[in-house]
Amino acid sequence: MSSNTDWNIVDRTGLELALQQARRSYQEGGIPIGSVLLLPDRESSTGFVVLGAGHNERMQKKSPTLHGEISALENAGRQKAETYRSSVLYTTLSPCSMCSGAILLYKIPRVVIGENDTFLGEEDLLRSRGVDIVVLKNQECKDLMTRFIAEKPEEWNEDIGEFRDGKPC
Amino acid sequence: MSSNTDWNIVDRTGLELALQQARRSYQEGGIPIGSVLLLPDRESSTGFVVLGAGHNERMQKKSPTLHGEISALENAGRQKAETYRSSVLYTTLSPCSMCSGAILLYKIPRVVIGENDTFLGEEDLLRSRGVDIVVLKNQECKDLMTRFIAEKPEEWNEDIGEFRDGKPC
Ligand SMILES: [Ca+2]
Ligand SMILES: [Ca+2]
Ligand SMILES: [Zn+2]
Ligand SMILES: [Zn+2]
Repeated sequence: MSSNTDWNIVDRTGLELALQQARRSYQEGGIPIGSVLLLPDRESSTGFVVLGAGHNERMQKKSPTLHGEISALENAGRQKAETYRSSVLYTTLSPCSMCSGAILLYKIPRVVIGENDTFLGEEDLLRSRGVDIVVLKNQECKDLMTRFIAEKPEEWNEDIGEFRDGKPC
Repeated sequence: MSSNTDWNIVDRTGLELALQQARRSYQEGGIPIGSVLLLPDRESSTGFVVLGAGHNERMQKKSPTLHGEISALENAGRQKAETYRSSVLYTTLSPCSMCSGAILLYKIPRVVIGENDTFLGEEDLLRSRGVDIVVLKNQECKDLMTRFIAEKPEEWNEDIGEFRDGKPC
């Protein structure tokens, strides 16, 4: 990873791209979580290239595994091991155990999270394995999730494998 | 989960179904790892119903996220939280961190593994979270993987995010 990377600028852009995915998913009636996988690249005028972007597809594709982060990885396609090890994953919400496991599988060294108030994923596990975690506490990420959870609590609970009020959703 | 379930019989059948998926993937030129998600069901003559089955799709669908276990979950479609919590996942190979994370996300209580000699996944993490892990040490599972790794080492290393001989694949 470039030592000259201005992370303040790259992180702001990376989270905005993830937010665009989350907003699009919300507009489609889906769960508003988005993610992008970026590769820092000093040759590029933006300082990075987008390897893949995606959003939660539970409702759109009836998918139980295409969380935002998995969608971004899937849309990035097959990448070399070394590419993942130089990449940064941006996600609007704290990554669940599945998405955290994908981060560990591909040894993605840095994960930038929009917010972890509406859901706290496996940040401790990631940190314990050496992943650099940044939480930006972005208000729009939190507002989008708060609105979705209020509107469609069953879908949200299904997405995280949880019951609601002690009853299955 | 039924207390009357004869696990010896169900496990033999579950692993055989996973192996069928692994064999099919090998025949397609893909990575020979298969998985099935079963739900014990005393009403059924077999003692279970198959919720979903799948195999690794890295080569067939150019997918970095459709490992055997993720494919089985994806093919099972959207399920209720309570369904996952009564299910059993069969997989021909020890689950990597991504697939182990999916098991934790959906709180699948029992995982039956064909073999863990060619690759040891996150079995310790799963056990530490209370997942019941059974390793059957199946010779055909091991033989299939051993043959594939010898034939296509680059593809295998890519699937587990690893380099070969210290060099990226
Ligand atoms: Ca979409
Ligand atoms: Ca196939
Ligand atoms: Zn997730
Ligand atoms: Zn896996």
